[in-house]
Amino acid sequence: MGKNLGFLLAFTGLLISSAVADWNILRPWKSSLVQEGLKNYCESWRINVELNNIKGFDVVPQECVEFVGKYMTSSQYKADIERAIEESVLYLSKGCCSLKGDDKDAWIFDIDDTLVSIVPYYKKHHFGGEKLNVTSLEEWMRKNRAPALRETLRFFNDIRGRGFKIFLISSRRECLRSSTADNLIKVGYHGWTRLILRKEADELMEVQKYKAKARQGLVKEGYRIWGIVGDQWSSFEGTPSAKRTFKLPNPLYYVS
Amino acid sequence: MGKNLGFLLAFTGLLISSAVADWNILRPWKSSLVQEGLKNYCESWRINVELNNIKGFDVVPQECVEFVGKYMTSSQYKADIERAIEESVLYLSKGCCSLKGDDKDAWIFDIDDTLVSIVPYYKKHHFGGEKLNVTSLEEWMRKNRAPALRETLRFFNDIRGRGFKIFLISSRRECLRSSTADNLIKVGYHGWTRLILRKEADELMEVQKYKAKARQGLVKEGYRIWGIVGDQWSSFEGTPSAKRTFKLPNPLYYVS
Repeated sequence: MGKNLGFLLAFTGLLISSAVADWNILRPWKSSLVQEGLKNYCESWRINVELNNIKGFDVVPQECVEFVGKYMTSSQYKADIERAIEESVLYLSKGCCSLKGDDKDAWIFDIDDTLVSIVPYYKKHHFGGEKLNVTSLEEWMRKNRAPALRETLRFFNDIRGRGFKIFLISSRRECLRSSTADNLIKVGYHGWTRLILRKEADELMEVQKYKAKARQGLVKEGYRIWGIVGDQWSSFEGTPSAKRTFKLPNPLYYVS
Repeated sequence: MGKNLGFLLAFTGLLISSAVADWNILRPWKSSLVQEGLKNYCESWRINVELNNIKGFDVVPQECVEFVGKYMTSSQYKADIERAIEESVLYLSKGCCSLKGDDKDAWIFDIDDTLVSIVPYYKKHHFGGEKLNVTSLEEWMRKNRAPALRETLRFFNDIRGRGFKIFLISSRRECLRSSTADNLIKVGYHGWTRLILRKEADELMEVQKYKAKARQGLVKEGYRIWGIVGDQWSSFEGTPSAKRTFKLPNPLYYVS
């Protein structure tokens, strides 16, 4: 019964929070039970995003912005990424992929929040709690300030050293090509085989379809896709996929 | 640097813990930094299981048994399940599925840790920290003591009421048929169309392949599969899949 009361209080807290623009206004009245309930609520939201049960959200729920912000700047987020990359390394070291040495063994990476972090942009924009302004994000991207995700960089170098051909398939638009390449090189990435960005025609379709189409192209060219590392489920879905995919956590935004 | 020290201590703690049979022996010496590092480590393990990056584990890592046990008996686990089911309800209420009224609209459920909870068994068996003894688990299953997952039961009734045909596709073996049906009925489930269990021949193949084969059978019979609710990625993988799938959390065990 005590727990039910806790949930009731928590739920009331959420209702109130939805009706008020800034959750922080309520903070002085938040009981620890409400805070516990809110943490439960936001953690459930986050895990269900990662489970791909919650799809296509435009913004992080207002009441979870603080929670998501904390996670994205935490040692937990770094540890979660590290573990995902460790599993990719394990996949390689267990002899996942018998490379033929014909230059047709491919590995695919996403760019944003996979190779480089765009969390610094979101930090200034309410951690996903406000609707994305593409113009403003692209302006930021043109400044080439996205830092490398250290673990992914190390893995990228490992993959390249093993003789895979690396393809970067991103939902970034074609007009960002030179900034994107500049940013990647600046933070230590080099030696990819192809940087695939969205052409105007691709902007008419869902990112998931555009990425699957790009993979179809690679397979037609004779490439064998051994793995994909990305932060969005839309980077893996559709056919052809890869022998293994590795999903990095990302509760900031959803790309369909 | 403080954080690095924390990780170093945590890592040392993990090394020690791996070498010692019972982590609890070490508890008096665990500093709060080590505890924090261990929590990070186990949370990363858990999220990477849910992201399907960590596959095919036989046991929960020894040092995370306490962490997993806490989660599986927490209000967080309940809230996570509730949210997953809420998303399934949302999918229905948004007009996901235009039922034709020809009795060919299908919905699939897993059984264990989807319709009913087998956490009570794992509670007595080190929360996934010891290798599964199938004989002992099946003995427990024959006692029909698995309680319903309340939210899934409500959703099951909702689905049935809307006119879907319900198929239960489980990795339980055929010899458990009557116990399984008894247990399900006892806790409130009724009105499913078919209970599909693993025949002897099916035991030779991976569960993922057996479940895909069962779905192939349904599609051949003319069924349209609108949704699957399950706790294992192997319940969704392979073709045909469903229009939408809903993954319930489960860090206790992995079914390939």
